[in-house]
Order: sequence, then structure tokens, then C-alpha cells
Amino acid sequence: MTAPIRIAVVGLGKIARDQHLPAIAATSNFDLVATVSRQGDGVDGVPHFRDIEQLAASGTVVDAVALCTPPQVRRSIAQFAIAQGWHVFLEKPPGATLAEVIALRDAAAAAGVSLFASWHSRYADGVEPARDWLAGRTIHRATITWREDVRVWHPGQDWIWEPGGFGVFDPGINALSIATRILPHPFFVETAELDVPENRAAPIAARVAFRDTAGAPIAMDLDFRQEGPQSWDIVVETDAGTLTLAQGGGVLSIDGGTAPAADTDLHGEYPGLYRRFAAIVRAGVSDVDVSPLRLVGDIYLRARHHVVDPFHE
Amino acid sequence: MTAPIRIAVVGLGKIARDQHLPAIAATSNFDLVATVSRQGDGVDGVPHFRDIEQLAASGTVVDAVALCTPPQVRRSIAQFAIAQGWHVFLEKPPGATLAEVIALRDAAAAAGVSLFASWHSRYADGVEPARDWLAGRTIHRATITWREDVRVWHPGQDWIWEPGGFGVFDPGINALSIATRILPHPFFVETAELDVPENRAAPIAARVAFRDTAGAPIAMDLDFRQEGPQSWDIVVETDAGTLTLAQGGGVLSIDGGTAPAADTDLHGEYPGLYRRFAAIVRAGVSDVDVSPLRLVGDIYLRARHHVVDPFHE
Repeated sequence: MTAPIRIAVVGLGKIARDQHLPAIAATSNFDLVATVSRQGDGVDGVPHFRDIEQLAASGTVVDAVALCTPPQVRRSIAQFAIAQGWHVFLEKPPGATLAEVIALRDAAAAAGVSLFASWHSRYADGVEPARDWLAGRTIHRATITWREDVRVWHPGQDWIWEPGGFGVFDPGINALSIATRILPHPFFVETAELDVPENRAAPIAARVAFRDTAGAPIAMDLDFRQEGPQSWDIVVETDAGTLTLAQGGGVLSIDGGTAPAADTDLHGEYPGLYRRFAAIVRAGVSDVDVSPLRLVGDIYLRARHHVVDPFHE
Repeated sequence: MTAPIRIAVVGLGKIARDQHLPAIAATSNFDLVATVSRQGDGVDGVPHFRDIEQLAASGTVVDAVALCTPPQVRRSIAQFAIAQGWHVFLEKPPGATLAEVIALRDAAAAAGVSLFASWHSRYADGVEPARDWLAGRTIHRATITWREDVRVWHPGQDWIWEPGGFGVFDPGINALSIATRILPHPFFVETAELDVPENRAAPIAARVAFRDTAGAPIAMDLDFRQEGPQSWDIVVETDAGTLTLAQGGGVLSIDGGTAPAADTDLHGEYPGLYRRFAAIVRAGVSDVDVSPLRLVGDIYLRARHHVVDPFHE
């Protein structure tokens, strides 16, 4: 039996309380030894600190930290953690910019700690079977439709509308994390349109045309204003039929029929992420795939901006 | 005596005629065997084609191509050239997006050809001496000031104002190509402001605050509306004095005094680029540093946009 990895969770917002703390509580791979947040309380029976410097000064023995803060402040916390010799789990997106993630990856390698740029949607049940099914197929076209109600899913998250907060690309990068995992060829941005509310700095909707290296078109439609039914779907038309990955990667079907069953008995995105994090820590390696974030940067580089109606929550 | 590399120049715009053709004519490393452009004429005595497919079909023996087209159309031409087994020299920026450059790099490696993502400003006379002088210094701060008159330097270049054309980052990426070469630590975007003319899709001015991994601030000021004296300057304050690299990397001074002389007797940015290209082709390797383009993407990711007065040329 391997000793549990002693972990602190930094940033106790919605994603930490909904996902990280339950996933850590449910696994013997990790022991929660501290929580850190500027506001609010921690967790009963677990030491709580206002910032990561206080945690370091406390003498608490820590092996790893999970950073659940907004992306804009994540880099300096991660750099500090790496300097302590702690392994680092980064919520998605791994940073507000690409260069900072590359610098963290290099710093982690130099310090001999593991850095994990996590992409939770890649751990949805349908993703690996979809990847396996698509391998070797000829792709005719793909469509990505991610339309959700920001008021329901991101209540009070003002950071999402600030520069570096990604707006509709906060969920949209989940779609890209799946697409970059399941599609057999690299793809790149040809055109992009971003709708930015006149009172905000980040897009509320986006339409992107990609093309893969084999010439297949990939269309992406993102909207944060979707009321009623919500959509988190990827549809891939191939020479062997149409693959549909619905519900954010959770439900796979081929030509509308039954999908191959996932061959794991351990379902759930965050449990999957923490199994992966434990594995890379114990193997002494990092897992930093920047391709979803790189595509968002590429979209911004090629985008035409449109000012649209103000958004008020 | 090594045989010259038979090269075709694709895209006969301003940069090809001002820089590439003279540099090729001046070196024994290359023989110009063809030119390619959709409009206009070629060069006396050299076969000319309308597109790269015509060139390939012509039977002309080609070892390498230099792609001088606008970045928005460069990817598909480069992909075609690599598929022919030709080495590829990419003008800067190497593409309109990062993912396409990564895909080209991987395609070149698979095809066994050399890909060169060129950054001409890195070959200015002051750059390598500046890098050597800064190595090991403590950097207190740096300022990058790139202010030029777009009407003088980019006449008729409408593509520069389209999505993927980079606007003021077309020259600004030259500054970043130098800064990433000479500064001793990686740096990343903290805040960015982009001014975009109401009738254009690309910024005419930008103000960016970076910070390096050692904590030093780096400020960048770009403006395409500069009349009168033009500025292409990088100033670096260090524990050993102030380094000034002026005239786009051409003139180095330390504390206002004489700079170390460059130790080459072969001056000029494009002659330097073509020496480098010949060297990597003969060594069978590629040279693809995406860091300047990555920083521009990062700036766009973190930027607040401001709509400013329309720009008319």
C-alpha cells in the first residue's frame, strides 16, 4: 500500500467545493491536509490558511497542491508552490496565457516535481471510446455545439468576464480539450467571430471555422446565452458513419445507436483526474498538454470582434 | 564547394523584392530557380509561375522555397511544399496561428525536410552582443518602444488590417523576437490594452505589461500612428548599468557609451537569415521557435479592446 499524497486545495470556489473536495475525500490516493482561500471558511477538521505563503510558513507537511483559483492569479501561486517542491494540479485552463504555462512546466522539470495541466472533460465516459472509434477513420466534417446558460453555470463568477477570464471559452475550452483528444488529425483556426458584450472584456458567444491537416472542416458554435435545453455536443461525420458525443463527453452514440461501453468501473471526471494526478506524481513525470489553450489563443489571434448588447447577471 | 540550394520565392510583395531577392542574389549558398506570385511579373531570366501547384507541375527542380506571402495564406502553401519534399523558409510571423506552425513543424519532421521560422530582427547587428551582455545580469526593468508610421512602412498592405494580419504586431512581433532572444528569463503577459480602429480588425496601437520569472517588469508600447521620428528601441536597466538596443536591434549601447562590436564581418538581417537557412538545410534540422508568436497570442488572450478612430490609408 502506497502512502497517500498529502494535498492542499487552494481556492475554495464553486469548482473546488463541487468537485475537488468530494473527489479527494473519495480516494485513498490523497489526504487533504489543508485548504487555502482569501475569503470564507475551510472544511471541518482541516487546517485553513488565507494564502499559500501562510500555508508554507505553518509547517504543515504538504506533498501537492490543487490550484482552483481563477486563471488570472494562478501563475504566481503555482510558481511559489513549485519552489516549495510541491507537485501542482492546475484546474483548467492551466493559465491565463500560454507562455506562463510553458514557464511553469520548465520550472517543474527543474525542481523535479510533477505538474498536471488538467482537462476534466477528457475524463468523461465517452471520450476514450470516441477516440478509439475515430482512430483511422476518414473525417468528412465535425461540428462542436456548446450552448449553455452562464447565469445557471457560472453564478457570480465576475472573473470570467475580465481579460484572461475567457468568457464563453471557459466552457468552450472543455469542448476543445475533447476535440483535440478524439479527432485523429491536428486542426487549426481559419476564421473566428467573437461577440463581446459592450460592458465586458470577454466574449459571450463565438463562431469558429477550423480545418484539419487532412482538409476536413470543423465548425464550432459557442453561446453563453442559451436558455432552455443546453447543448454540449460534438458530432463527427466519417466514412464509417456519424459519431455523436453528447452531454459534454458523457454519452457516445454511433449512427444514433448504442455505443461501445466504457471499459472502466470507476466513472466520473474528477475521480479520473485525481487517479491520473496520483499516477504522474508516483511516476515522477508531468502531464502538460497546452493544445486546448493554444487553440483559444489562435482563435483570438484570428478573430473579428463584434460588440453586442451588454450582459448583466 | 557545396552545391547551391535551388530555391523558389513565393509571394513577390514588398519584403520579397526589398530583402529576399537581393539576399539570394548575393550568396553562393542559393540559386534562384523560380518565382511564384498570383499577380505581377517575376524576375528577368527566372521562370515565373502563378501558384505553387504550377511550379510543382513544371518539372523545375526545386530544393527549397521561401514563403513571403501574407501569414493568412501561408499554411496551405507550406503544407504543399513540405509534401513535395521541399525545405521551407517562412517569413515572419511563421503563420497566422500557433497550431498551424506546430502542425507544419511536425509535418516537416515526418517528411525529413527543414522548416525555418525566420525572425529577421534577431539577425540585426546588436542582438547577439546584447544577449551576451545581459546573460547573468539582474534585470530591474525593461521597456520596449516600437512606434512607426504604418503609411510609410506598410503602404497598400491591406492584409495587415484583416484578422490574422496582426496590425501593429506585425512590427511588434519583431520587438518580441529580439526581447525573447536577449532577455535572460522567460516573461509573460500580465495586462494588455489594444486599440482597434472602428473600421479595421487588427490593432493600431497596444500597451502591454509583462513580467519575467524573476519578477522584473517589462513594458511594451506599440503604435502605428507615429509621425516624425520613429522608434524601435529596447532599454534594459540592470545591476550593471543600462543597455539600449536602438534602431530595431541595429545599434547597441551600454550606459550611453560605445558598445562591444559585433564579431561578424557579414552584416545584414536577410544575409544572416539565408546563412542560417543554408546551415539548417545542410545539417538536416529545423529551426522553429514559436515564442514571439506565442506572446502575441497571449497578449490577445489577456487584452482589453478599445475601439478608436477609423484608419484610412
